[in-house]
Amino acid sequence: MAASTASTYPFYQIDVFTDKGFLGNPLAVIVALDPALPFPNDEQMQKIANWTNLSETTFLLPPTDPTKADYKVRIFTPNTELPFAGHPTIGTCRAFLEHTQSKKTNLVQECEVGLVVLQVANNGSIAFIAPPLRKTGPVEEETVKVVCESMGIAREDVLDTQWVVNGPHWFALLLKDAETVLKASRVPTLASKQFEFGIVGQYPKAAAAAAASGEGKEDGNAPFFEIRAFPHVDLIDEDPVCGSFNAGVAQWLIGNGVAPASYVASQGLALGRRGRIFVHRDDSDLSLEASKRAVWVGGQTAVCIQGTIQV
Amino acid sequence: MAASTASTYPFYQIDVFTDKGFLGNPLAVIVALDPALPFPNDEQMQKIANWTNLSETTFLLPPTDPTKADYKVRIFTPNTELPFAGHPTIGTCRAFLEHTQSKKTNLVQECEVGLVVLQVANNGSIAFIAPPLRKTGPVEEETVKVVCESMGIAREDVLDTQWVVNGPHWFALLLKDAETVLKASRVPTLASKQFEFGIVGQYPKAAAAAAASGEGKEDGNAPFFEIRAFPHVDLIDEDPVCGSFNAGVAQWLIGNGVAPASYVASQGLALGRRGRIFVHRDDSDLSLEASKRAVWVGGQTAVCIQGTIQV
Repeated sequence: MAASTASTYPFYQIDVFTDKGFLGNPLAVIVALDPALPFPNDEQMQKIANWTNLSETTFLLPPTDPTKADYKVRIFTPNTELPFAGHPTIGTCRAFLEHTQSKKTNLVQECEVGLVVLQVANNGSIAFIAPPLRKTGPVEEETVKVVCESMGIAREDVLDTQWVVNGPHWFALLLKDAETVLKASRVPTLASKQFEFGIVGQYPKAAAAAAASGEGKEDGNAPFFEIRAFPHVDLIDEDPVCGSFNAGVAQWLIGNGVAPASYVASQGLALGRRGRIFVHRDDSDLSLEASKRAVWVGGQTAVCIQGTIQV
Repeated sequence: MAASTASTYPFYQIDVFTDKGFLGNPLAVIVALDPALPFPNDEQMQKIANWTNLSETTFLLPPTDPTKADYKVRIFTPNTELPFAGHPTIGTCRAFLEHTQSKKTNLVQECEVGLVVLQVANNGSIAFIAPPLRKTGPVEEETVKVVCESMGIAREDVLDTQWVVNGPHWFALLLKDAETVLKASRVPTLASKQFEFGIVGQYPKAAAAAAASGEGKEDGNAPFFEIRAFPHVDLIDEDPVCGSFNAGVAQWLIGNGVAPASYVASQGLALGRRGRIFVHRDDSDLSLEASKRAVWVGGQTAVCIQGTIQV
């Protein structure tokens, strides 16, 4: 790709699951909506995503059918393409709104898994409906042991386990509290690297109440859970803030009554971030079985870097 | 940092040790030369460097004394500040030239280790003088064994070892050939994580000759060595292309006659990159002892992303 044949595309680096720059999960977005520019090819897309070194980089493209979707997105980790992912969905939607100056509050995203419905709340947060779980049920004891050993978690501090596969092959361990989640030290081992997993722990009610009156005043959201996610694929060990894992956890823990129908999760503290994931189950139609109601996963976004990229 | 008090700084993401975008080592540069803007504070700088997730992020600042240096740089990894580093020095110099539209070919950079002399070659490549080695000598056998085991290298494939500490606490293993360097698999272990090390292997002369007539035609530089570097600190496992490690290796291997006084090294192939490091010892003053002559380490750069960042 000689300089003479390079094309210049609009570029955004958006912070997702935070309204304060540099405290969420960054997403690089290359805007390829302009029909006058060539679309980057698959190899270029993968190469750029490898180079940004972010958990995901997306390419914002025109929808296949503009009557059905507002835009199309292709999502890449440093090593592979993903059919769907949470933080890239929210961040790409923000880049679309920012770039097109659209004021739409109901959007449809086209991606490899199909059409994804998005809503923009009054406070600007963007939410998607948690994709259906393809695999649930408890995690095999042998697997739980491998992860506990790798992360220095005492087995008796794991209250419950569950597969929450919704594309990525996530499983979740519910730990006894948020403090145990935060102090888990990840010792990377080959054995644990074969899994994609996350850990969840509830904040004490007293701390949540204090947070609601203190920290809560600042960002309006005391966290109910602390969450950490280890995709263990590609070049990313721990994901700063992760939509798909939170989506799976929400379906599991609202479903079994551990979490309320609406809550805020915190993620990224262990990496120096302060992500906030807004979760709520849509209970407006009570004729629907609880397990069939939509669970929305959303967050604020901040446009941190804006400019152009030479491809 | 509320949105209302954010300042907007020029931003560059420069690819270093390549003239083709996305094949080198990316560097994020925040330009804080404008006296009308507040300087980002230490906490902001570290937070941004953690967020970019690149091996280094730099802040381009006015020099303390403009009669002595062209600019000052502060260099951050995702977790800490560095007194000096190679790829950030070359990339920040390119950002300075780009941003100020300067045509200077001899520059002085101020950084924590002091003043660093830089030269811009006719082909646009930028080089710095390898900093003096603070520790040399063979590596302890026990340490060599830990690294060999971690990376799946047979001990008998290690031809020689050397400490090449020039700020970072690097040591180098000279392997039997470039192929052995490329096929080393890094299995992250706690034991090897305590070291910063790299591996070097020579390309066969026939391959180098073929490359000079084939690949060499494309980029003008057949590689003499293949290099990989594992800083093992912070969040970065393997560095795509690394100036300081190459600087140390050059002093060692030109010094003992394994390498010629001028050569090109390749780095990053194992990560899908194709970095090129230009090394040459300045033999223009033959009255100087060979060990006292300056060893220049340089590379091409490509401005991939250009825009602004909200801090």
